[in-house]
Amino acid sequence: MARVVLATISALLVLIASVPSTYALAADRPIDPEHSVVLQLDDGSIVIELSPLFAPATTAQFKRLVRDGFYDGLNFYRVIDGFVAQGGDGSDMSEEENAEPVIKAEFDLDWSDNLPFVTVQSPDLFASETGFVDGFPAARDLESGKVWLTHCPGAVGMARGNAADSGSTDFYIVIGQAPRYLDRNITTFGRVIYGMNVVQQIVRGPSEEGGMISDAGESTRIRSAHILSDLPADQRPAVVVADTNSEDFRQMVEERRHRKAEWFIKTPPAVLDVCQIPNQGRLQR
Amino acid sequence: MARVVLATISALLVLIASVPSTYALAADRPIDPEHSVVLQLDDGSIVIELSPLFAPATTAQFKRLVRDGFYDGLNFYRVIDGFVAQGGDGSDMSEEENAEPVIKAEFDLDWSDNLPFVTVQSPDLFASETGFVDGFPAARDLESGKVWLTHCPGAVGMARGNAADSGSTDFYIVIGQAPRYLDRNITTFGRVIYGMNVVQQIVRGPSEEGGMISDAGESTRIRSAHILSDLPADQRPAVVVADTNSEDFRQMVEERRHRKAEWFIKTPPAVLDVCQIPNQGRLQR
Repeated sequence: MARVVLATISALLVLIASVPSTYALAADRPIDPEHSVVLQLDDGSIVIELSPLFAPATTAQFKRLVRDGFYDGLNFYRVIDGFVAQGGDGSDMSEEENAEPVIKAEFDLDWSDNLPFVTVQSPDLFASETGFVDGFPAARDLESGKVWLTHCPGAVGMARGNAADSGSTDFYIVIGQAPRYLDRNITTFGRVIYGMNVVQQIVRGPSEEGGMISDAGESTRIRSAHILSDLPADQRPAVVVADTNSEDFRQMVEERRHRKAEWFIKTPPAVLDVCQIPNQGRLQR
Repeated sequence: MARVVLATISALLVLIASVPSTYALAADRPIDPEHSVVLQLDDGSIVIELSPLFAPATTAQFKRLVRDGFYDGLNFYRVIDGFVAQGGDGSDMSEEENAEPVIKAEFDLDWSDNLPFVTVQSPDLFASETGFVDGFPAARDLESGKVWLTHCPGAVGMARGNAADSGSTDFYIVIGQAPRYLDRNITTFGRVIYGMNVVQQIVRGPSEEGGMISDAGESTRIRSAHILSDLPADQRPAVVVADTNSEDFRQMVEERRHRKAEWFIKTPPAVLDVCQIPNQGRLQR
């Protein structure tokens, strides 16, 4: 019987120790329905928060495409496990249906002291500083004074060709270990704040084929896409997210940096991976 | 029409540029059937390569449990999206069925010059050096002379209570951004080398409940578990993995560090996250 109890306690402790409950710790804020999109996929819905701050033109085009019904019925046609799920390709459409303009690159911003940058790690491996800007994981380069959204899991970017200004409709969601080498090379314009479990259900393509799914019938489809503000208030997912500007959030970050739980036998290095800090939203009770 | 072609080319180029085909580049090696386990889950099978080098006692106990059928029918009862899928809890069993000994901690090893450590990044954010040891992502501390397996996606560890030597049967698979703060605090004894897409299908529990799935009927079950060498040769998954000791592999790593593809408008920083280097296996043709 002692063994049974031990096993149960072990199971509980390992995770209590390793996942501080950010949901209880951090103050929440509602999301802006005018800059949030719900995608209904085959296996559930996901909510994406857009960043008009970092990517005004891309956000505007994505919203217009959503409102035009452009994405309704399109599939995630290229999905590489551990990397990205890519969808929104209109190349099967007629020229008229797919005559979408390309968007100017929005890879980074000039630093402004007005930006509510909450520092997480300085220096980080990939940048001189990482942190959060209004909930979005971000990084900045102190020398050049640039700031940008980082490719953490759940980041939503606009695919492009070799030219900087060639993104148009194709977007991707990061589904694996953060490919930070893409930072500042492609426009990141949003992040999944609800439904990453649904994102992880998206059907993968074969690695040998670079994730291309040859049989579209097997792929995961976007059934519909809506801007939250276009839905009746009672049909909007009532998602709230951690307020990364709150004192609670800063405190949670510091507690993760300096872990004091009894479970830790060796104190971890006092460093943080900005992409490993939970910042998913939750449904309001 | 020009637009249609552009969209297609964009879609192709973005991924060709950002995911070098490691499958073509790196020389493969077969896996050791005596130290590889296949778990048949509800939605497919996964293959785990064990590390008797880093975790001899844990590997031995896990193999014995597999051979005893201990895991057959057990579920992943605690699954936190972006973190870990935990299963293998025997606390519902009778005392007799679940009288498994605890295992001595195997958190790290003393450095030996005989270890085939292929350096990836030095210094890394969490350790003075990261790299691969026979396919396993690893790190070492040059000062203390310790080396250990890192908590990258796909890492398999043995859960424990507050005491170092309290692991027994409960194990977890990392399913999200690498929780490197767990390194050296828990025994990592294997890695998923095939079927991470199946791992990502494992049913998640609610975040508010710390991932605990209250209705076991909704959880993902381990239907069966086998050591590969116990299966008839023609029923073993013919998985091969990149030979991280090969010159091809080192070259792939350097090409990722210094990206020269035309797609990159800004050359990424010449640093690498060991957990972001693809090292999944593939089925032999």
